[in-house]
Amino acid sequence: MRPIITLLTDFGSSDPFVGVMKGVILGIAPEARIVDLCHGIPPYDLIQAGFLLKMSYPYFPEGSIHVAVVDPGVGGPRRPILVWCHDHYFIGPDNGLFSFLYAAGNVQQVIEVTASGYFLPQVSSTFHGRDLFAPVAAHLAKGVEFRSFGQPITDYRTLEIPTSRLQGNLLRGEVLHGDRFGNLITNIPQETLKALVGEGWGAVRVELGRQEIRGLSEFYAEIEVGKLGALIGSSGHLEIFVHQGSAADLLQVKRGAEVLVRCP
Amino acid sequence: MRPIITLLTDFGSSDPFVGVMKGVILGIAPEARIVDLCHGIPPYDLIQAGFLLKMSYPYFPEGSIHVAVVDPGVGGPRRPILVWCHDHYFIGPDNGLFSFLYAAGNVQQVIEVTASGYFLPQVSSTFHGRDLFAPVAAHLAKGVEFRSFGQPITDYRTLEIPTSRLQGNLLRGEVLHGDRFGNLITNIPQETLKALVGEGWGAVRVELGRQEIRGLSEFYAEIEVGKLGALIGSSGHLEIFVHQGSAADLLQVKRGAEVLVRCP
Amino acid sequence: MRPIITLLTDFGSSDPFVGVMKGVILGIAPEARIVDLCHGIPPYDLIQAGFLLKMSYPYFPEGSIHVAVVDPGVGGPRRPILVWCHDHYFIGPDNGLFSFLYAAGNVQQVIEVTASGYFLPQVSSTFHGRDLFAPVAAHLAKGVEFRSFGQPITDYRTLEIPTSRLQGNLLRGEVLHGDRFGNLITNIPQETLKALVGEGWGAVRVELGRQEIRGLSEFYAEIEVGKLGALIGSSGHLEIFVHQGSAADLLQVKRGAEVLVRCP
Repeated sequence: MRPIITLLTDFGSSDPFVGVMKGVILGIAPEARIVDLCHGIPPYDLIQAGFLLKMSYPYFPEGSIHVAVVDPGVGGPRRPILVWCHDHYFIGPDNGLFSFLYAAGNVQQVIEVTASGYFLPQVSSTFHGRDLFAPVAAHLAKGVEFRSFGQPITDYRTLEIPTSRLQGNLLRGEVLHGDRFGNLITNIPQETLKALVGEGWGAVRVELGRQEIRGLSEFYAEIEVGKLGALIGSSGHLEIFVHQGSAADLLQVKRGAEVLVRCP
Repeated sequence: MRPIITLLTDFGSSDPFVGVMKGVILGIAPEARIVDLCHGIPPYDLIQAGFLLKMSYPYFPEGSIHVAVVDPGVGGPRRPILVWCHDHYFIGPDNGLFSFLYAAGNVQQVIEVTASGYFLPQVSSTFHGRDLFAPVAAHLAKGVEFRSFGQPITDYRTLEIPTSRLQGNLLRGEVLHGDRFGNLITNIPQETLKALVGEGWGAVRVELGRQEIRGLSEFYAEIEVGKLGALIGSSGHLEIFVHQGSAADLLQVKRGAEVLVRCP
Repeated sequence: MRPIITLLTDFGSSDPFVGVMKGVILGIAPEARIVDLCHGIPPYDLIQAGFLLKMSYPYFPEGSIHVAVVDPGVGGPRRPILVWCHDHYFIGPDNGLFSFLYAAGNVQQVIEVTASGYFLPQVSSTFHGRDLFAPVAAHLAKGVEFRSFGQPITDYRTLEIPTSRLQGNLLRGEVLHGDRFGNLITNIPQETLKALVGEGWGAVRVELGRQEIRGLSEFYAEIEVGKLGALIGSSGHLEIFVHQGSAADLLQVKRGAEVLVRCP
């Protein structure tokens, strides 16, 4: 089987950073199938990168290798790590980027990557995506044993993930991500919402940016064009949207904005 | 032969939507070769998506599978369809996205996709690209019979496509697409232009945004840097350009702007 | 072995130009592995394209084929060329795009591409990426002999590359490229810098946009968040940065801005 290697970075598309990583991978593992997961992460944004990675990797086959590089500390003391989780592999810096994975509780083992024989001969201090993470992913794809890359660690860095809180019949969450369409994805999972509202979806009140939305929709087009609605999005979280428009523009809110859900 | 699956969407590059579709495809059809056709379609813009798809697909081998997702009605009553046309396959929502294909008259069969056994086990109501179109494309690529996905239909939705009109010696068209360079691609095909002007290309007058362009060029660099010209572009349509500059910026016109061609 | 074909263009991501080139390549060379090197080159910017190409290609295996299309003169008298250099192949217009390769001195042979049997049957005058460069790359990938594409030439066009100059103990260079993070990459190679400063890195003074930076860092995170620093970047050139910020925004400088290095 030809292994899959995905790439998630904050490298954007104006530079050949991603292309060069692919050159390194194909030089080592010519049969690898490389998939761009996303390179539009805002620079240095570990929370957004971690959230999108966690939402995405389950749609890849088991055994896939996910390289994630959002790495402001590159070249300094932060460690490179290899995470085995849910029978997928994740490679990146130990700066909290994988906190959403840790929180989900499926981590099988975390290794500090020290086996420099698997790095490029010259390792720069500013581009470990090219010199370290890409070649390690390629060697793993070629069949090098997970444990050959270094020693297990348990003190990997974990960031505090903003989680929603239920207080009586009030559910407090926040906007985690604004997508391309201006849809606002919150940190309120459908399970929590169901625990609050049971089957009474029509009675829910969602508050965000001084607007109140009454009831949840099933799909976008249920709502008039240009009007605000809320539904359970494709990531399984409460999402605020404008049908054929942008909720982010209409409400002028950003990541971190508070979202309140009531069930009167 | 390893099948080709192309992807055309309005998903942009700031989210992992496209990457996740590829994960789904490779999980089902590991040998598929996936090509990004374009993901920069303006959100919900069916006309632009349809036009670019029609201009692009003939450059792929016969038998290629083209997934097109511009889908504001996702999750609602609009049907998913599979179009067999010109010995290529097209998969997407039945919202008029394929109108340029229908207008060109090469449609062999259109099927309403109902065979949910080929979808992901959980189908969300907001991301059929991932849950329905990608897996159907992958199963088709793996050799599942076209007719296994559902029943033929003939009442597929067709949008009105803006076409150019010849009135005496005046040809009336409009701007269909502004490309990356600010070139303005019109809906005037070279055949129509030739019918009007014969071999007298030098005599043509093109009017757009209060400017008049005299004569057609063969190539961009024929015109002084920064000056306006017109030629037959690579899609076979009349195109207005500025050599090493942007006609869209210079003329401040957008899609839908009227273009007049006279042959005095 | 399946050949690698990389693509570097100024085509951006709002059009299917790149996707169509891939369709053409896969139609001719179905086993080619295609890698996007970069499509975010500013329109018509030969210097930036050439610099990024030169920095990137060595990370691909020998024998790789690199298609580079920044081509304002498309359709006119400028020649299509094939460059064999450092055991890699480069295909593109003869407009100076490959000047950084020529300057590095590893060119083995340059050929004017005239064998139109390897082009698409219809060659437009505005999109040679699709009609000429992509099919030539694909035929080369399939094993057609380098020399079959045309005759050797030696009068290929060379642009003047801005190079740094040492004047006494003052090193004068300029900004060559601003990357996604706002890092400013200069044309001062580390070898030149070392010749000036020896081991006295701490004593170096870097001046750019009315700011002076004292000493060179080893990595970004050595500097306080939001502060300005200088280091040797991953391309082996002097680079000005702001830790977790943008030097381009802070200094309001662009490509071509003068950079002075002193060693008192």
